[in-house]
Amino acid sequence: MLHHPLIATLQAIVGEAHVLTRGAPDADLSAWEHDWRKRQRGVALAVVRPAHTAEVAAVVQACAAAGVAIVPQGGNTGLVVGGVPDTTGNEVVLSLQRMNAIRHIDTANLTLVAEAGCVLQTVQETAARQGLLFPLSLAAEGSCTIGGNLATNAGGTQVVRYGNTRDLCLGLEVVTAQGEVWHGLSGLRKDNTGYDLRHLFVGSEGTLGIITAASLKLCPAPAASLTAWAAVPTLDAAVALLGLAHHQLGAGLTGFELMGQFALSLVDTHCPQLRVPLWRDTPYCVLLENSDHESEAHARTRFDALLERAFEQGLVTDAVVAESIAQANQLWHIRESIPLAQAQEGLNIKHDVSVTASAIPAFVEQATQVLQAALPGIRLVNFGHLGDGNLHFNVQAPVGQDAAAFLRDHEDRVNTLVYDTVVAFGGSISAEHGIGALKADTLHHYKSGVALDLMARIKQALDPLNTLNPGRVVTRGALDALSRP
Amino acid sequence: MLHHPLIATLQAIVGEAHVLTRGAPDADLSAWEHDWRKRQRGVALAVVRPAHTAEVAAVVQACAAAGVAIVPQGGNTGLVVGGVPDTTGNEVVLSLQRMNAIRHIDTANLTLVAEAGCVLQTVQETAARQGLLFPLSLAAEGSCTIGGNLATNAGGTQVVRYGNTRDLCLGLEVVTAQGEVWHGLSGLRKDNTGYDLRHLFVGSEGTLGIITAASLKLCPAPAASLTAWAAVPTLDAAVALLGLAHHQLGAGLTGFELMGQFALSLVDTHCPQLRVPLWRDTPYCVLLENSDHESEAHARTRFDALLERAFEQGLVTDAVVAESIAQANQLWHIRESIPLAQAQEGLNIKHDVSVTASAIPAFVEQATQVLQAALPGIRLVNFGHLGDGNLHFNVQAPVGQDAAAFLRDHEDRVNTLVYDTVVAFGGSISAEHGIGALKADTLHHYKSGVALDLMARIKQALDPLNTLNPGRVVTRGALDALSRP
Repeated sequence: MLHHPLIATLQAIVGEAHVLTRGAPDADLSAWEHDWRKRQRGVALAVVRPAHTAEVAAVVQACAAAGVAIVPQGGNTGLVVGGVPDTTGNEVVLSLQRMNAIRHIDTANLTLVAEAGCVLQTVQETAARQGLLFPLSLAAEGSCTIGGNLATNAGGTQVVRYGNTRDLCLGLEVVTAQGEVWHGLSGLRKDNTGYDLRHLFVGSEGTLGIITAASLKLCPAPAASLTAWAAVPTLDAAVALLGLAHHQLGAGLTGFELMGQFALSLVDTHCPQLRVPLWRDTPYCVLLENSDHESEAHARTRFDALLERAFEQGLVTDAVVAESIAQANQLWHIRESIPLAQAQEGLNIKHDVSVTASAIPAFVEQATQVLQAALPGIRLVNFGHLGDGNLHFNVQAPVGQDAAAFLRDHEDRVNTLVYDTVVAFGGSISAEHGIGALKADTLHHYKSGVALDLMARIKQALDPLNTLNPGRVVTRGALDALSRP
Repeated sequence: MLHHPLIATLQAIVGEAHVLTRGAPDADLSAWEHDWRKRQRGVALAVVRPAHTAEVAAVVQACAAAGVAIVPQGGNTGLVVGGVPDTTGNEVVLSLQRMNAIRHIDTANLTLVAEAGCVLQTVQETAARQGLLFPLSLAAEGSCTIGGNLATNAGGTQVVRYGNTRDLCLGLEVVTAQGEVWHGLSGLRKDNTGYDLRHLFVGSEGTLGIITAASLKLCPAPAASLTAWAAVPTLDAAVALLGLAHHQLGAGLTGFELMGQFALSLVDTHCPQLRVPLWRDTPYCVLLENSDHESEAHARTRFDALLERAFEQGLVTDAVVAESIAQANQLWHIRESIPLAQAQEGLNIKHDVSVTASAIPAFVEQATQVLQAALPGIRLVNFGHLGDGNLHFNVQAPVGQDAAAFLRDHEDRVNTLVYDTVVAFGGSISAEHGIGALKADTLHHYKSGVALDLMARIKQALDPLNTLNPGRVVTRGALDALSRP
């Protein structure tokens, strides 16, 4: 593979030091070849690390001329095998990690321009130093990059107030499949001059173009954020509490997370240093965050008024409001420890689904019934961003069963049962993680033919050689179907 | 024209009563053929008024088979000649006005599904009856339709808080150029299953598909909204006041409008029943709106605190806060009377431009200099949605000059001078009105070739026969350029 003629061309573009190949002594490309969840151990023709947009464009042109596919990659924290090479050894990984500058911050316009390889936390910290907030927040924020966040339209814990990543983006710089540069780094709040190319590239997982930089929206930082933890008697009560919180807090409601009792029991078991409150006597707990532009005292008054009303209405049976930032962080830490606790309990089948908030109780009831009927004794780790209708409705093997065997034997069936139920409720089989290679075939069973056809038409129009992340999101079969009469 | 063979087909689809032609006795199609601003007096082959999505699909198929172009139309209040037929008599107007049902409201999910022909005000009122808010608000709201709002990504007066129309849309039902129906009426807050088709159709002005219904976001209605009117000494002060308001009010800031002294003098002259406050001794006034989820008293306290700080910092020289809803309405009425007052002063050259908030003072200074140097004595009617960087930077003939002659002789030159300056500041030549037929050629001078090429590729992929609103947004020349080697 070392002698592929493309390698020398790539070296000439980015410098020898920035083209990594498996043939080199001590070469270990696993950091770029293996995905975060270790679902894929790919093999790259090379890993190319350009430093500038012009180098990205030249790499794309060179690969297109050589007929070699490109897999764009940010922090490689994706969950759907969208940013690692396949096993053929014929794909080039284009890592954006060296393009990590904050190019510009405009505090009067509340915008910031970051290169694709900027780590999310760096963007957050840059904004914070100006008294501003970049509200995207998710577990991988210390290593994921803003380019990856945009390519996958990442969600996270603040979506209930600030939207998904696409809602935080005003403009993009993109290298097209033809190796041209679209300079669309607008800081404008309003621009109706043609099709919204920005929203087409955001969420396209590197299949339509390579995002090299983005113009991002910032917000004034709130004066205070308070966190509450409430026990709710039912899922219906949780949904009603969400409505009440929207009504009473308005845009102050910046977080609304749901945690099922079994999920919390796993944290209690596997993370004994964490003290999980209120979980023993209630089927669900809810974590609420209230951000206030006036003061902490005002935030507390409003939170107390909300919780008082919720008690009166029977939506909450017990609640605590964090008295300090340290306490608040600890409550969030419990929520964020669920995936870890779950992993310590054993391998499990993960989902990332969404339905409307109003449909959540009925969806959970029906999905639970269907799964228990098919696989008695399975354990549901139900938690997620209830404020966005997004549940990580994960499935753990019955007590005493070998988890690896359970996954091997039942993962496809469990997925089918969950996805069929999700779609029956008008929901999404991938709320915030995307499609990648992992779900591209599955998507064909659940998305309408008209939508898939539109997607294939767009892919073919923008990347006719199918050079950019081929087979991810849009399958080769969908493209082939286009050319049929 | 009556005998075009397509007419009988269309009559069979929607019923004879709903195919209007010019040949019929007493036929007056001017309501569908002439645009709102009377820039275009088109001639339609027919006006077709389907009642259901299936009828829209059948009409599209029939027109495609006959090689006849379709111009989708909502309330016909567009400002860029995007929704009326050309003068050839060969285009069919497809009016969505009969599809005006609210199909569904889901208060727990804060969503509503409306058909494209729903008048915006009907959507607002339907939400209000449930204690909810549909925040899109603009001058034509009594007659524009939600389909048109989506097709043009309408802006209006609440964008500073709630975004443009696209930000209020969760899903769409669309008839494609092939006459298929994309059932994408999602109520989901999170859905990462492929390309965002919704955002591609929104703002595409009927050139990629015909929006027949939409799933819209609602918000809890605030407990109170207060309006203030402030005199600011400079544009720099206005921009600093915007920053301070963002910081102190957070998401409470729901309106921030700028009005120049000359614009207000026209209201004072031509609308003597309105009492315009504070305008005589200041170059600019600002209208602020503060919406509060707690109470009117709290809103007033916060507003007072903001204005006090603004006085201390010299950003505001005088201010009034409306004491009643009637007073607030009157202040808004003054703002909204500027276009009318301007029309009474005489014909004028309108713009709808945006730059970043931070660039507004320098942009206005330079654009004014350039225009005054070229055409001494011209009068600038400068007002707009400062919170979004959106100015309606309109140009009135010098005192004593014939306005019609001024427009005839100078409109192109004035537009060029304004647009050149806008683009030099990284701005947009159409912030909220769109492109339509009026600006499609102009766009080619100001948008990058890469962006125009991407748009043409998308148009060709989704509407290869160029049946849907041809020549609007994407010119025929741009499509022809694609097929060249």
